[in-house]
Amino acid sequence: MKKLLFALLISISAFAQIDKVEPPFWWNDMTHSDVQIMFYGKNIAQNEVTVSNGIIIKGIQKTENPNYLFVTIETKNIPAQDFVFTFKNGKKSFTQTYSLKSRRENSRFRKSFDSSDMMYLIMSDRFANGNPNNDNNDALTEKADRTKDNGRHGGDIEGIIKNLDYIKELGATAVWPTPLCEDNDERGSYHTYGQSDVYKIDARFGTNEDYVRMSAELHKRGMKNIMDYVTNHWGYKHWMMNDLPTYDWLNQFPGFKQTNYKMTTQFDPNASAIDTKNCMDGWFVKSMPDLNQNNPLVLNYLIQNAIWWIEYADLDGFRVDTYSYADKQGIATWTKAITDEYPNFNIVGEAWLYTHAQIAYWQKDSKVAAIQSYNSNLPSVMDFMLQGILGGGVFNENKGNWNEGVTKLYDSFTNDFLYPDVNKILLFAENHDTNRLNEVYKNDFKKYQMAMTIIATVRGIPQVYYGSEIGMAGDKGKGDGDIRRDFPGGWNGDTNNAFTKTGRTEEQNKFFDFTAKLFNWRKSKTVIHNGKTTHYIPENNVYVYFRYNEKESIMVVVNNNEEKQTFKSNTFQENLKNYKSGKDVLSDASFDLKNDISIEGKSVLVLELK
Amino acid sequence: MKKLLFALLISISAFAQIDKVEPPFWWNDMTHSDVQIMFYGKNIAQNEVTVSNGIIIKGIQKTENPNYLFVTIETKNIPAQDFVFTFKNGKKSFTQTYSLKSRRENSRFRKSFDSSDMMYLIMSDRFANGNPNNDNNDALTEKADRTKDNGRHGGDIEGIIKNLDYIKELGATAVWPTPLCEDNDERGSYHTYGQSDVYKIDARFGTNEDYVRMSAELHKRGMKNIMDYVTNHWGYKHWMMNDLPTYDWLNQFPGFKQTNYKMTTQFDPNASAIDTKNCMDGWFVKSMPDLNQNNPLVLNYLIQNAIWWIEYADLDGFRVDTYSYADKQGIATWTKAITDEYPNFNIVGEAWLYTHAQIAYWQKDSKVAAIQSYNSNLPSVMDFMLQGILGGGVFNENKGNWNEGVTKLYDSFTNDFLYPDVNKILLFAENHDTNRLNEVYKNDFKKYQMAMTIIATVRGIPQVYYGSEIGMAGDKGKGDGDIRRDFPGGWNGDTNNAFTKTGRTEEQNKFFDFTAKLFNWRKSKTVIHNGKTTHYIPENNVYVYFRYNEKESIMVVVNNNEEKQTFKSNTFQENLKNYKSGKDVLSDASFDLKNDISIEGKSVLVLELK
Repeated sequence: MKKLLFALLISISAFAQIDKVEPPFWWNDMTHSDVQIMFYGKNIAQNEVTVSNGIIIKGIQKTENPNYLFVTIETKNIPAQDFVFTFKNGKKSFTQTYSLKSRRENSRFRKSFDSSDMMYLIMSDRFANGNPNNDNNDALTEKADRTKDNGRHGGDIEGIIKNLDYIKELGATAVWPTPLCEDNDERGSYHTYGQSDVYKIDARFGTNEDYVRMSAELHKRGMKNIMDYVTNHWGYKHWMMNDLPTYDWLNQFPGFKQTNYKMTTQFDPNASAIDTKNCMDGWFVKSMPDLNQNNPLVLNYLIQNAIWWIEYADLDGFRVDTYSYADKQGIATWTKAITDEYPNFNIVGEAWLYTHAQIAYWQKDSKVAAIQSYNSNLPSVMDFMLQGILGGGVFNENKGNWNEGVTKLYDSFTNDFLYPDVNKILLFAENHDTNRLNEVYKNDFKKYQMAMTIIATVRGIPQVYYGSEIGMAGDKGKGDGDIRRDFPGGWNGDTNNAFTKTGRTEEQNKFFDFTAKLFNWRKSKTVIHNGKTTHYIPENNVYVYFRYNEKESIMVVVNNNEEKQTFKSNTFQENLKNYKSGKDVLSDASFDLKNDISIEGKSVLVLELK
Repeated sequence: MKKLLFALLISISAFAQIDKVEPPFWWNDMTHSDVQIMFYGKNIAQNEVTVSNGIIIKGIQKTENPNYLFVTIETKNIPAQDFVFTFKNGKKSFTQTYSLKSRRENSRFRKSFDSSDMMYLIMSDRFANGNPNNDNNDALTEKADRTKDNGRHGGDIEGIIKNLDYIKELGATAVWPTPLCEDNDERGSYHTYGQSDVYKIDARFGTNEDYVRMSAELHKRGMKNIMDYVTNHWGYKHWMMNDLPTYDWLNQFPGFKQTNYKMTTQFDPNASAIDTKNCMDGWFVKSMPDLNQNNPLVLNYLIQNAIWWIEYADLDGFRVDTYSYADKQGIATWTKAITDEYPNFNIVGEAWLYTHAQIAYWQKDSKVAAIQSYNSNLPSVMDFMLQGILGGGVFNENKGNWNEGVTKLYDSFTNDFLYPDVNKILLFAENHDTNRLNEVYKNDFKKYQMAMTIIATVRGIPQVYYGSEIGMAGDKGKGDGDIRRDFPGGWNGDTNNAFTKTGRTEEQNKFFDFTAKLFNWRKSKTVIHNGKTTHYIPENNVYVYFRYNEKESIMVVVNNNEEKQTFKSNTFQENLKNYKSGKDVLSDASFDLKNDISIEGKSVLVLELK
C-alpha cells in the first residue's frame, strides 16, 4: 500500500511537470503566426489542452512519445500579452503561462549584411576570454583547459563585446562568431557545432542576455551580428536524444551512419539511391545526430528556432553550416520560411563544392538548379573556388602559363555568369576549416596583401578570419587546433596583446594597419560594393581588373611575379577611357596613366582613377 | 597601237572568263532553296546577269571587289535541270551553265551518327597510302616526304577505302578522317586544317569522286562517313586570300593577330571587349586566316559549302573543328541552317573547355547557355573532361582517396545533369591533338582495356583514335608528328602490316582482338546506347556502374588497384535486384551474384546480368 501510494505520488509529481516549452515565447504580428509550441514533460500527451484569452488552438499533434505535445496556436491579429495553457487529465490539471511579445520596430524589414560589409569570422572559444568566471559550469561536462588543442580555452561573448572596437577599427562591419548555443559534448565542445540545446547560449560563452547585449553593442557601432546556425545536425548530448519525440526525428540507420560527404549526389541524375540517402541522411560525424528535415515537426522546429533567434537577439544574418548536407527540400523550405518572415534577411550557406556550377546550384533562383526544378532559396553562397585558389598557394606560383598563377583567378571569375547574384557571394581566403593564409604563404606580408586586396576588391562580400590581420598562421595538417589558436591578448596574462596598437609587435602592426586601411577604405566604396567588373586576360602573371560605376572607377593590378613588371596602360583603354591618373589606395602613390605602369614584384595596386 | 590592241584583247579575254562558280551546282527540293551563287572572274561585277528557264533571280550582291558577283536564285519547286546564266556588259556577253540536280532518295531525313555508333578517327595522311601515284601533285606545293614528322606521308582516301573491312572488323561503325579538302600550305599541309579550296578534295588525298566513292563503300558496309569541317578559318593559301571579296571576309587587325585561346570570353560577363574580340576574331595560327562569320556573305558561303558536301558526298555527320572559336552567333546560325536542312543530322563540335558547365554551354538547348539567352544549336559536344581524366593518367593513380583514382571518373559523371542530351556526348580517351593513350600508360594492356571499356560502356558516342587498337603510342611532347605516326601496313614495303591478323604481331593482335570484341559486342547493345545509368561512389579505388533498360542490365566494375579486390555484391542491391549471375563480356567468365565478387588488379568487368 505504501509502495502504491509512493508510485502514485511520483506519478502525480511527474504529471505536473513541464520540462521544456519551445519556443519559450513568441511575438505577435509575425508572418509565421501559426506557432507550434512543443511541450515536453512526462506523459504530457495524456492531457487535454486549452488556452485562455480567446486564443485559438489550430492543431494538436501527438507523437509516438507521450512526453511530447505539439500545440499550434494562431497568433495573427492577437495583441502582445501573456496567456495560459491549461493541461487537464481527468480531475488533475496544471497550467503553463506563455507570452506573445511585441516586436522591435521594423523588425520584419531589418537590413541584413551585403556586399557593403566585411564579415569578421571569430572562433568563439579562441578569441578572447572576457569573463574568466564562466569558463567552467557545473552543469556542463567539459572544463576549460588551454593546454589542449581540442579543449575549451575560455573565449566567450564578453570577450567579443570587449573587443568590438578593435574589430571596428579593423574595418569589419559584421561579426560571425562560430556557434554559441550550448554544446555539452565531453570533448571538442569548443567548436560548438554539436549543440545540446538550441534555445540556450552555452553558459561557458555567457547567457542569452549576453548574446542580446552583443547584438546591441554591435548595432551601437553600426555593425552586424551574424549567427552561425546549424540545421543539419545537433550534438549527441542534445537533451532530446535520450527521449526523441519520434524515431524519425533523426535520420537513423538505426542510429549512426557516417555521411559519404558526396554532396554531388544531391543533383547527380546517375547517383544510386543508397549513396544519395547516405549523403543527406548520414551523420556528419558520429557525435552529431543528423536531423530529419523531411519530418514536418523537425522542420518547423528548426524554422521557429531560427526565427526565434533573429527576433530575440535582433540578428542581422545567418551563416548556415553544412547547408548542402541537409535534406534538399527541407532546407529550401527552411530558408524560404526565414526570408518570408524577414524579406531582406541574408543567409549565407556553406555549400563546399568544387565547381562553380555546383556552388551556384545552391544560390537562390539558380538557373543551374532550375534544370532540375530546384530552388534552394539561399541568398548567398560561399566562393570556395576562390578560396581554393587563394588558399591553395597561387601566390607561390611565379609562372603565368596557361593555367598557372593569377590566370587561375581570372579563369575562376569567368564563371560568374552561373551565379544568379554575384554580389551575394561570400569571399574568403580561409576560414576555420582551412589552412591559414599566413601558413600557406609563410607569413609573407606581400602575399597576404595580395590575397586580402583581392577579396576586398572583387565582387561579393569579403570575410576575414580572426587573427590573420595580425599575421596569425596555422596548419590544418596539424589539426583544427592549429588553425584555431587563441588570439593574443584575449586572455589575462597574455604577454602579447594584439588588440591594441601598443600591445602589437611591429610585425603585427604591419599586418593590422594594412588590413584596417584596406577595409576602412572599402566601407564607403559603393563602386566596390556593387559596381561592374571588367577583367583582362593576365599576361606575364599580372592580373588587371576594374570595378566601376557611373561615378568612379578603380583599377586593380596584381603582379604575381617576383620581379617588377612594366606594362602599357593603353592595353586597358576601354576602361581607362579619359582618366589621366590613378592614386594607389594602399601606398598613396600616384600613377600617370599616359605612361607605362610599373608595379613591384609580388604586389598589388588599387588605383582610384582620376 | 599594238600595245593598246594587246591590252584590249587581254581585257576581253579576262572579261570572258569565270574562274570559279560556287557552289558549282545545287539540288532542287532543298530547304535552303535560295541558293546564293558566287561567280568569280575579272571584273565580273560589271555585268548584267540574266538566267534562262524562267528561274527567278532574287538578289544580286556586289562587293567592293568587282571580281565577285553573288547571285541568289530561287529554286523552290523548280525541277532538276541545267540552265544558263548570261553575263552582259554593253554588247559583250558570255554564258555559264548551272545545274540543279535531283537529290538522293530520303536525303533530307538521312540517318546520322548517334550513341549506337563507334567513331574511328583517322589522321588521313597517316593511315594508309592506297594510291602512291597521287602522293605529289604539280599544282600543289608540298611534296611527300615520310622522313619528316611534319611532312606529307601519302595517306589518302584510297588507303581508307582499302581498309574499311579492317575498320569494320574492329567494330567501328563510323569513320572520321581529318579534313580532306585541298590544303596548299608549303609546310604542314598534311593535317589539312588550313584549306586552300573548300569545294575540292586535295589531289594528294584523291578526287571529289573518290570521296563520294568512300561514302558509298562505307554505306555498303553499314558504316557512316563523318566529315571534319572547319568553319573557323581557312588556310592562308586559300585561292581567295589574294583577292578577297570584301575586306571583312576575314577578321583583320589588319591581317593576322593570334587568338588568345580564352574561349571563356565567349560567356564571361566580366571579359573585356578587346579580349573577347581577340579570342573570336584572332587567328588560330598565322597560317589560318580567321573567317568572319558575322559577314552574311561569308556565313552563307559556309552554310552552302557544308550543305553541298552533305548532299554531294552523301555524308552522315560533321565533326566541326574549333567550334567555339567562331563568331558565337554566326556558328549557331550555321549549325541551325544545316540541321534545318537535315533534321536528323548530327554535328559534334570541338569545344575544348575545362569544366562541364562550359562544355555543356555549347550543346543544343543548353540550360546553361540559356542563362545568357544563347543556343548554339550544336547537337553533340565532346567530353573533354573525361578525356582529361583517362588521358591524364587516372589508371596510374593507385590510391582511391577523396579526389584521386577512379573517383575522378565518378565525380566527372555527376555533372551529367548539365547536359541537355548526355547520349550525344562524344567519348574519347585521346585524339589527334592529345597524348596517345598507350603513351600515357606505357602500352600497359590492362590500362588500355580499362580506358576503352569505359568509353565503350558509359553514356555517349565512343570515338577511337586510329592505331591505338594495335598498341600505337605517341608523345605529344615530342610534337604532333609523334601522335600521328603512320599506321603500320599502310605503305608499300611496310614490314609490319597491322591491317591483317597474320600481319600483326602477337602484341598487336592482343590489343586488336580485345578492342574488336568490345566494340562488336557494343553494336547491338541498346542498353549501352541509350539505357539509364546508375553509378556508385567508388570505394577503395573500385568504380561500379550499371547501364540498364527495361530489358537488360549491365554491371561494369573498374578496379584501379594493383591488387585484386573483393566486395559484397549486396552493396549494389538496388541495381542487382533479382539477377543471379553475371557473365563477363570480356572474359566470358561467370559470376555468382550471391557471393562476393572478386576482380583482378587493374582490370575491368562488364557483366551481363542474368
